[in-house]
Amino acid sequence: MNLVASESISRLATLHCSACGTSYSAFELQRVSACCSLPLVAGYDLHEPLSRDVIDQADSSMWRYGALLPLLHEKNKVTLGEGMTPMLHLPRLAARHELSSLLLKDEGQNPTGSFKARGLGMAISKAKELGVDGCIIPTAGNAGVAMAAYCARAGLKAVVVMPRHTPQAFKEECYWYGAEVELVDGLISDCGARVRQRNANGALLDISTLKEPYRLEGKKTMGYEIAEQLNWTLPDVLLYPAGGGTGLIGIWKAFQEMKQLGWLAPDVKLPRMVAVQAENCCPLLETYEGRQANCHSYQGSATLANGLAVPHPLGESMMLRVLRESRGTVVGVSDEDMMAGMRDLGKDEGLFVAPEGGAVWMAARHLLATGWLHRDESVLLLNTGSGQKYMENVAGRANG
Amino acid sequence: MNLVASESISRLATLHCSACGTSYSAFELQRVSACCSLPLVAGYDLHEPLSRDVIDQADSSMWRYGALLPLLHEKNKVTLGEGMTPMLHLPRLAARHELSSLLLKDEGQNPTGSFKARGLGMAISKAKELGVDGCIIPTAGNAGVAMAAYCARAGLKAVVVMPRHTPQAFKEECYWYGAEVELVDGLISDCGARVRQRNANGALLDISTLKEPYRLEGKKTMGYEIAEQLNWTLPDVLLYPAGGGTGLIGIWKAFQEMKQLGWLAPDVKLPRMVAVQAENCCPLLETYEGRQANCHSYQGSATLANGLAVPHPLGESMMLRVLRESRGTVVGVSDEDMMAGMRDLGKDEGLFVAPEGGAVWMAARHLLATGWLHRDESVLLLNTGSGQKYMENVAGRANG
Ligand SMILES: Cc1ncc(COP(=O)(O)O)c(C=O)c1O
Ligand SMILES: Cc1ncc(COP(=O)(O)O)c(C=O)c1O
Ligand SMILES: [Zn+2]
Ligand SMILES: [Zn+2]
Repeated sequence: MNLVASESISRLATLHCSACGTSYSAFELQRVSACCSLPLVAGYDLHEPLSRDVIDQADSSMWRYGALLPLLHEKNKVTLGEGMTPMLHLPRLAARHELSSLLLKDEGQNPTGSFKARGLGMAISKAKELGVDGCIIPTAGNAGVAMAAYCARAGLKAVVVMPRHTPQAFKEECYWYGAEVELVDGLISDCGARVRQRNANGALLDISTLKEPYRLEGKKTMGYEIAEQLNWTLPDVLLYPAGGGTGLIGIWKAFQEMKQLGWLAPDVKLPRMVAVQAENCCPLLETYEGRQANCHSYQGSATLANGLAVPHPLGESMMLRVLRESRGTVVGVSDEDMMAGMRDLGKDEGLFVAPEGGAVWMAARHLLATGWLHRDESVLLLNTGSGQKYMENVAGRANG
Repeated sequence: MNLVASESISRLATLHCSACGTSYSAFELQRVSACCSLPLVAGYDLHEPLSRDVIDQADSSMWRYGALLPLLHEKNKVTLGEGMTPMLHLPRLAARHELSSLLLKDEGQNPTGSFKARGLGMAISKAKELGVDGCIIPTAGNAGVAMAAYCARAGLKAVVVMPRHTPQAFKEECYWYGAEVELVDGLISDCGARVRQRNANGALLDISTLKEPYRLEGKKTMGYEIAEQLNWTLPDVLLYPAGGGTGLIGIWKAFQEMKQLGWLAPDVKLPRMVAVQAENCCPLLETYEGRQANCHSYQGSATLANGLAVPHPLGESMMLRVLRESRGTVVGVSDEDMMAGMRDLGKDEGLFVAPEGGAVWMAARHLLATGWLHRDESVLLLNTGSGQKYMENVAGRANG
């Protein structure tokens, strides 16, 4: 199915291989690059100037940035109102830890309770636009729930493959959306293998992280929102829970695009990006600190922060590039510390966050303690999900 | 503690008794009216014209309507980003039921997962402004969770009294916010009795529905948002799940204020308001249909839609007035039908709604069937919460 971008507000122009730069058409269905079997990245025509006035102020969702998103035709938009999540000051925690500026962007207030709504909202909209009629996904939980919801909304078939140990709430919610759920013993990598096997004939579109180019475009809207909500400035340090890595990569991509567009003034410094991982599964940390050449044979185990249990992220080198370019770092957090972080955010700030959110706060505390982070730097925590679906795992442990 | 409104953007002017109109100061702590022991309602100075330009377009929360809210000083605002929830078209359900325009406002995307965030965000902000240092609430679940969250954020003590049969998720979430939870055998009315007993000395502010004037002001922001999101038009029919009634009363109050302000053109017709109740606990339906003089001795039982299990709503006559003025009606829905409604919204539209949301959709179907609602009328459903916390009750029953 071929589509042309004329009469569209989208400036989508091309796709290119994230490793070697080879170009591919952005107007037909693509998966990974044929050249390197690595992620494809969307490029936009930014030659003709585009002012910040293109932002649709009447739209309180990620779709306000339509010109810089890949959807060509409004009629294909599949939306549940994702995006424009609150940017919150954390005055009580900041005071307690003598931080001059501590912010949290609460992605738990998205449809389906996590930032995954952005990526899947975009990917399913594009799947609809490109004529797909069913999708399949290996998931640690949140992405599968989001895919199930957007497929239901679009009228597409949905198959969700998740680890058997995933908390029940993730499975039940998929059921409510009418998705088919398959449980696999193991981690998301094992689910990925099962998806390849089950979908060998390619009948369904495989929505695995970075195996199609548009989840990333949905995720990048977090970067646009951060800048807009901070009145076109940026924090000194941004902490993000990195599993597959689309959030980290997507936010950084948005910062680059905004620089190119002139939406960020030349003197605005980009933040140092911190990838936060779970001690139980921290392939990026191991590679970053030189204990392995790459994640290919990394062995991880389950963690409370199931979104971080990604032992072999396809986007590893893209994440490492973000860390290098931003002079960032990687921090590993234990399950016990994640819970302590959730408690801090709950008791002091009234936020019931996912373990991933607890982890980023504890990583900030750790970096403060080591001196990598200074008390007078402005810090932004990304809480990627609500604590709700994790209840069965955290409540008993925290109460006990 | 006395506060003056000078240098405030708020036009708050007075409080008056909802029954007899007697005025009270809006600048000191008030509970119910001394004259009639009935709810106090906030009034604003709307003599000097106020254009829609006072709406703060950069604020994607209910606080964008600051001039028409009771908070005097920005520094007392206790916010988690509540409000500006999405207004969604339901094209697939509309087509299936041959409705020309079916909309749903998804309040499940609020902080703490329900519209209660609006009322409690406002009430706790005002409690802070008025110098209160602790709050207590009888609750069916959602209001207690929200109060616990906003009290944590404000640094206030929180005591939450809820029925023992409330799903576990509501209790656990209060725990994460550090609130004290007391469980009572019975419904919210029994919890109310326990609150009065426990707080006989008045040490804590009682945040019971309509026993302080500001939850209502938070709830009314739904009305402002509906009008703004529909570009200053309104639907023909609005369906709302009514328990204590603050939502129904608050939305109607907003419509009246906007008429007075000229924000709604004289030719804009206000919607017929439908109060949706649970068959297991439908005091309003019984009074409305003349089977009892009022709800005082109504006997209700528990329902899946725990927010509707309010046997003796203090605001009964205020709700009846809304129904009369709007030429609305009341519908009772069974627990089984609520689940069927949740299934419809999940499978066809990708929304995982609270049983209350399932109920309003089934009420719409019922009113279509009876002819009270016409296929060419525009219909707005209010989904007041996310389905998440109800999982333990609905999943087993729906799967079985
Ligand atoms: C709550 C949460 N946070 C973070 C992640 C990591 O996502 P990514 O690194 O792909 O952006 C996930 C993925 O499942 C998640 O569910
Ligand atoms: C999800 C939900 N919907 C509706 C209601 C009814 O609220 P009210 O009638 O006070 O607006 C409640 C109250 O607990 C609730 O939790
Ligand atoms: Zn290549
Ligand atoms: Zn009176």
